[in-house]
Amino acid sequence: MTKRLLLAATLLASAATAQPADREAALDAQISSADQMAWLKTLTSGPNHLGSPHNQANAALIEKLFREWGWQVKRADYQVLYPTPVSTALELVGPVAKTLGGQEPGIPEDATSNTLAGALPPYVAYQGDGDVTAPVVYVNYGLPADYEALARRGISVKGKIVIARYGGGWRGLKPKLAQEAGAIGCLIYSDPQQDGYGSADTYPNGGGRPPAGVQRGSVVDMTTYPGDPLTPGVGATKDAKRLTRETAPTVLKIPTLPISYADATEILSRLKGAPVPPDWRGGLPFHYRFGGSDDVRVHLKVASEWSLKTVSNIIATLPGSSRKDEWVVRGNHYDGWVFGASDPLSGEVALLSEAKALGALYKAGWRPKRSIVYASWDGEEPGLLGSTEWVEHNLAELRQKALIYINGDSNGRGFLGVEGSQQYQAFVGQVAAQVRDPQTGASVAERWRAGVRAKAFDGLRGNATALAAAEAGGDQPLDALGSGSDYTAFIHHAGVTSLNIGFGGEGESAGSYHSIYDSYDHFVRFDDPGLAYGATLSKVVGRMVLRLADADVPPVRFGPLASAARLYLTEIKALIETRRREDQRRAGLSPELYRLASDPRDPIAPPLAKPETPAIDLAVLDAAIGRLEAAAKGFDAAIGAKGASLTPAQTAALNAALKGIDQTLLSPAGLPFRPWFRNILYAPGRFTGYGAKTLPGVREAVEERRFGDAVREAGIAAKALNDYADRISAAAAALQ
Amino acid sequence: MTKRLLLAATLLASAATAQPADREAALDAQISSADQMAWLKTLTSGPNHLGSPHNQANAALIEKLFREWGWQVKRADYQVLYPTPVSTALELVGPVAKTLGGQEPGIPEDATSNTLAGALPPYVAYQGDGDVTAPVVYVNYGLPADYEALARRGISVKGKIVIARYGGGWRGLKPKLAQEAGAIGCLIYSDPQQDGYGSADTYPNGGGRPPAGVQRGSVVDMTTYPGDPLTPGVGATKDAKRLTRETAPTVLKIPTLPISYADATEILSRLKGAPVPPDWRGGLPFHYRFGGSDDVRVHLKVASEWSLKTVSNIIATLPGSSRKDEWVVRGNHYDGWVFGASDPLSGEVALLSEAKALGALYKAGWRPKRSIVYASWDGEEPGLLGSTEWVEHNLAELRQKALIYINGDSNGRGFLGVEGSQQYQAFVGQVAAQVRDPQTGASVAERWRAGVRAKAFDGLRGNATALAAAEAGGDQPLDALGSGSDYTAFIHHAGVTSLNIGFGGEGESAGSYHSIYDSYDHFVRFDDPGLAYGATLSKVVGRMVLRLADADVPPVRFGPLASAARLYLTEIKALIETRRREDQRRAGLSPELYRLASDPRDPIAPPLAKPETPAIDLAVLDAAIGRLEAAAKGFDAAIGAKGASLTPAQTAALNAALKGIDQTLLSPAGLPFRPWFRNILYAPGRFTGYGAKTLPGVREAVEERRFGDAVREAGIAAKALNDYADRISAAAAALQ
Repeated sequence: MTKRLLLAATLLASAATAQPADREAALDAQISSADQMAWLKTLTSGPNHLGSPHNQANAALIEKLFREWGWQVKRADYQVLYPTPVSTALELVGPVAKTLGGQEPGIPEDATSNTLAGALPPYVAYQGDGDVTAPVVYVNYGLPADYEALARRGISVKGKIVIARYGGGWRGLKPKLAQEAGAIGCLIYSDPQQDGYGSADTYPNGGGRPPAGVQRGSVVDMTTYPGDPLTPGVGATKDAKRLTRETAPTVLKIPTLPISYADATEILSRLKGAPVPPDWRGGLPFHYRFGGSDDVRVHLKVASEWSLKTVSNIIATLPGSSRKDEWVVRGNHYDGWVFGASDPLSGEVALLSEAKALGALYKAGWRPKRSIVYASWDGEEPGLLGSTEWVEHNLAELRQKALIYINGDSNGRGFLGVEGSQQYQAFVGQVAAQVRDPQTGASVAERWRAGVRAKAFDGLRGNATALAAAEAGGDQPLDALGSGSDYTAFIHHAGVTSLNIGFGGEGESAGSYHSIYDSYDHFVRFDDPGLAYGATLSKVVGRMVLRLADADVPPVRFGPLASAARLYLTEIKALIETRRREDQRRAGLSPELYRLASDPRDPIAPPLAKPETPAIDLAVLDAAIGRLEAAAKGFDAAIGAKGASLTPAQTAALNAALKGIDQTLLSPAGLPFRPWFRNILYAPGRFTGYGAKTLPGVREAVEERRFGDAVREAGIAAKALNDYADRISAAAAALQ
Repeated sequence: MTKRLLLAATLLASAATAQPADREAALDAQISSADQMAWLKTLTSGPNHLGSPHNQANAALIEKLFREWGWQVKRADYQVLYPTPVSTALELVGPVAKTLGGQEPGIPEDATSNTLAGALPPYVAYQGDGDVTAPVVYVNYGLPADYEALARRGISVKGKIVIARYGGGWRGLKPKLAQEAGAIGCLIYSDPQQDGYGSADTYPNGGGRPPAGVQRGSVVDMTTYPGDPLTPGVGATKDAKRLTRETAPTVLKIPTLPISYADATEILSRLKGAPVPPDWRGGLPFHYRFGGSDDVRVHLKVASEWSLKTVSNIIATLPGSSRKDEWVVRGNHYDGWVFGASDPLSGEVALLSEAKALGALYKAGWRPKRSIVYASWDGEEPGLLGSTEWVEHNLAELRQKALIYINGDSNGRGFLGVEGSQQYQAFVGQVAAQVRDPQTGASVAERWRAGVRAKAFDGLRGNATALAAAEAGGDQPLDALGSGSDYTAFIHHAGVTSLNIGFGGEGESAGSYHSIYDSYDHFVRFDDPGLAYGATLSKVVGRMVLRLADADVPPVRFGPLASAARLYLTEIKALIETRRREDQRRAGLSPELYRLASDPRDPIAPPLAKPETPAIDLAVLDAAIGRLEAAAKGFDAAIGAKGASLTPAQTAALNAALKGIDQTLLSPAGLPFRPWFRNILYAPGRFTGYGAKTLPGVREAVEERRFGDAVREAGIAAKALNDYADRISAAAAALQ
């Protein structure tokens, strides 16, 4: 028995009766980077996409580990539509013939890149199969502003194949908007400016995307609803009522393929037509042009196998003692696109370390007050399948029992990043102050503050709220959750308080993202050597779970949430004013003015006419947020004064008052165009995809010039916020 | 006789006695793009750098044309230090041996690129000869902020050869700052992001700089003083007292060579060390690194022939009648770096058209009231040699006689651009409203306004003042003059009212700038096909010269000048406030904070400590500008009310009051560190080179934290502006 193991055993022995601080020391002692390295090596040793043999083996291993560690484990399986590629053919037909596409090449420096049997070639899930040959138009990011720019130059994509670069918004919007604009095919490529040599030396010299690297991904129309396209709103059980593939609104209609920048160069460098605007240029060494002429043509054929497949979530529980029917839920997915070292297994191995440590405490006699539920999700990559179906299937129970959901996904070297329900901002700050950063020895909270201040001064990034917090020595403001990982169904559909957490900012996993190079070798060289940050994440989240499970009352403070809501409203007001000025300016821009302003060699029409933004009365929201601020202030002061000295009756009353509080944020009818999304405070943007929109019903109505909707949605949001404020006030009253 | 010639003859016949509008029609009829095409072809048919046989032939041709057109012509020759290259050797020594540098290659599509006998190879004039071998450090633009970034990463250029990219500031600052930092050699390359494929298809497919294209230029320390390095402040006549090359402060000390991006790739792609910050990355297809290690070494040997050479200005005059001793001076240089089609001959042929037309009017009997002096400058490229020596040599006479100097240089397709003394803003606007844009048929003023509004809306460029003017249908605001062409000695040293004028923004001459590809072929394909804008420039400037020469009183309005001065002061106050906030923030950034904030794989120290910016009292300037505003308002109202109905006595008094008014802007002691520059309102920036600094004594003192200087310079500027206001008031009084 080594000295370290001896210490761990000693700590554990006293964990059952220990003070919380001692229990956390015992937790830390069980968390080991070496464990994580070993698990990561095994889990990444074969292709682990949904349904693959190695993914099933990984599930079995994870299940086995949980059982060994003393957890109660069950599978939660669902039958989902999940297409796998049969053909992903791409050829340049003219001006020269050239075969493009296909699997990414292995390299000697990356062991698993040479063991690709069973790996899927680059493809995007839920595109629309097809076989098309057409000229190519470059559409920049392929987002709405890009189509407006094309329209102003008289360039149509109708009957064409578009080529878009990654970035600017979620992948799935690119083929969706392309098909809406009449394109018959879509290529998406990784421009080296974004994640190739523009960001790092290319793999294997550095972590940047190599010329032949391709980003796979899902293009399911997740902004309408995530999860199985055939069973919106209900669990995809064997007997669930299903849509057909043809009637499922989230399955796209045109063939789409992701390609490398080596392949994109073959197409883009040959395009003719006018030069693109400066902000459309990427990092390839030629002058980018729109294309569209008949001489550059490609043939694209995508065919898939569309059967139902099984997603298998692994749900592990440590039952609670006094508050068994309150759940602290923690999850990370385990399926990847190929080997999935960074995404998702770097997060999953951190979760495993927590589970091992919590299991050891449990075995040593500790019993959490609340139940702890650890989920390893399957099928996140194609469309958040496992987590969404589980939430939909267990919706009523989750709304009754879930105190919080804490999500992880990729993790890497760098700074703590946390997003989510801001009533936990102070709690996150407390934990972050008590865990050491492995590189500097400072607390991760201190390191976060230092990073924000240094980056803001050096003009590298940052926002005013974060900077003010960092300078004041305060807590990291929690950004709003959009989408892109398994918290989506929890916060946006079920109204379960959620956090998403991970370290990052110094690794180079962007360059391997969703490619065969997202491997063990890449990860331990460029992303989190030694998995030091894997262990650190386990310590942070492990502490959070311990504290949440054992807290007499939820450790919430509502001031940060009220401030966030105020900020969101202020932003929307500023947006309205900006739009009004811009609309006035636009109204003065005639075709004649643009005839004079344009270069006749490259003429451009005026901006498209748009309904003028009116003054929009948001007084109801102003009032509701005012009420929220007052209620939050009252609650925070009351709980601050009381500290831990609550009577059992007060504790019970407070728990009752706060139970399911975030469900008051749900709009009964859901958001416009997408009733599945119901949270009035946050949503993934309809036209950003992963990026969050806050007060989304109002904000998107302003952005999309649905001015009537803006007023109506303001009323809905105000009602929700008033109800929320009432719940906080009730909780505060319980403290009297 | 063609119909067109017949018309021209008829118009001319009545020009002597005609109304101004008829005279301008006669002027237009004499201006011909075909003339300009023919002259351009001849003038660009051989290498025409200072002292070359073809440049001498060009001078003889220009002189002959002026004489034929009826002008009085004389040469103004000076003897100047002008080095020409003997060796420009560059080799990569390690990790592989490779010869770099040398003359740019000819291409079949460009006729003169294949007739390079007598052309100089790429070099920069007034670098310091030397023979060095050393490791290479990439220094981004090689400007002060870049050296601060290097220092914070512990990277020294001492004993190294730096490689800087073009851009960010004037070329000559790069080797100057490199030598001050201890570098022993300097390479400057054209990054393709700036003027290669990042801006246009590369030549000959488009006008962009091809991989082997090199930008020549001067690196003389022009921010200290321009002109002959040996004779600051005096004309470089044969007998002038001279410094030696060794004692001349504007001649640099380290060998420096400009190179192509093909050659730069050989060096930069091999550099090791830490990755550069994101804003240091250029458009080459690899990840940029700092370098500095011993394994990448280059050998650089530059040797020059340093004898005195003759610059020969061609000064042509049409003597005035009633106000012979008031001069309207107009100039453009005629020397180039190789063939010089765009720079400078596109401007020179426009000047020739004006001269031909004015000569024809003169021959037909018209006599201008004031004398018209047309100068064709020699030796502008190496350091504004011809114009500077002429101004220095004729300083007293110019101060007595010059009403205004109007400068031209490169001209191209696009929008009118005018910079300079803002009391002529309204005058420029009037002329611009009366000349048609050749591409659109609108007036050049209308096109300017349309362009500003469209570009501002589309986020492409623009400033608030120009946008407000364009939206109000007002005059183009004249930006301040910095340096980079022959107006420099006039406005900054002699205090002669100056304008710089040309069309541009739609041509692609950036890609041929100072290379062998700045040729007739390039110009007529990509810069100003058919020289349509050459003729348009002639019509604009020809009108200006006609009106200025014949005006009873100078057509000035001082409101725009006062507004510009107010804007400059407002900017400086904002700068002080920004600096104060930044300084406070910097003071909180400790080494420990940066230890926590830094990536340990790429550590960075805090920003260098700097003296904190105090509150600076600029009340004297506030008051002076207030007085200037009031005086301007009074004068503009008075002259507006009077119109053309002045008595002879009023006319005389007004002319007397306004004579040499801009000389009141001269600081007796000149600007700090560079007494040659004396204008308190504008100067080329010490650390921008070409770019203007306004209220430069004050602004640069704030920027460089010479806070005592800021207060002192504010007093000097306030005195000058008060004197200026008094002169305006005196002029207004003359109208009563």
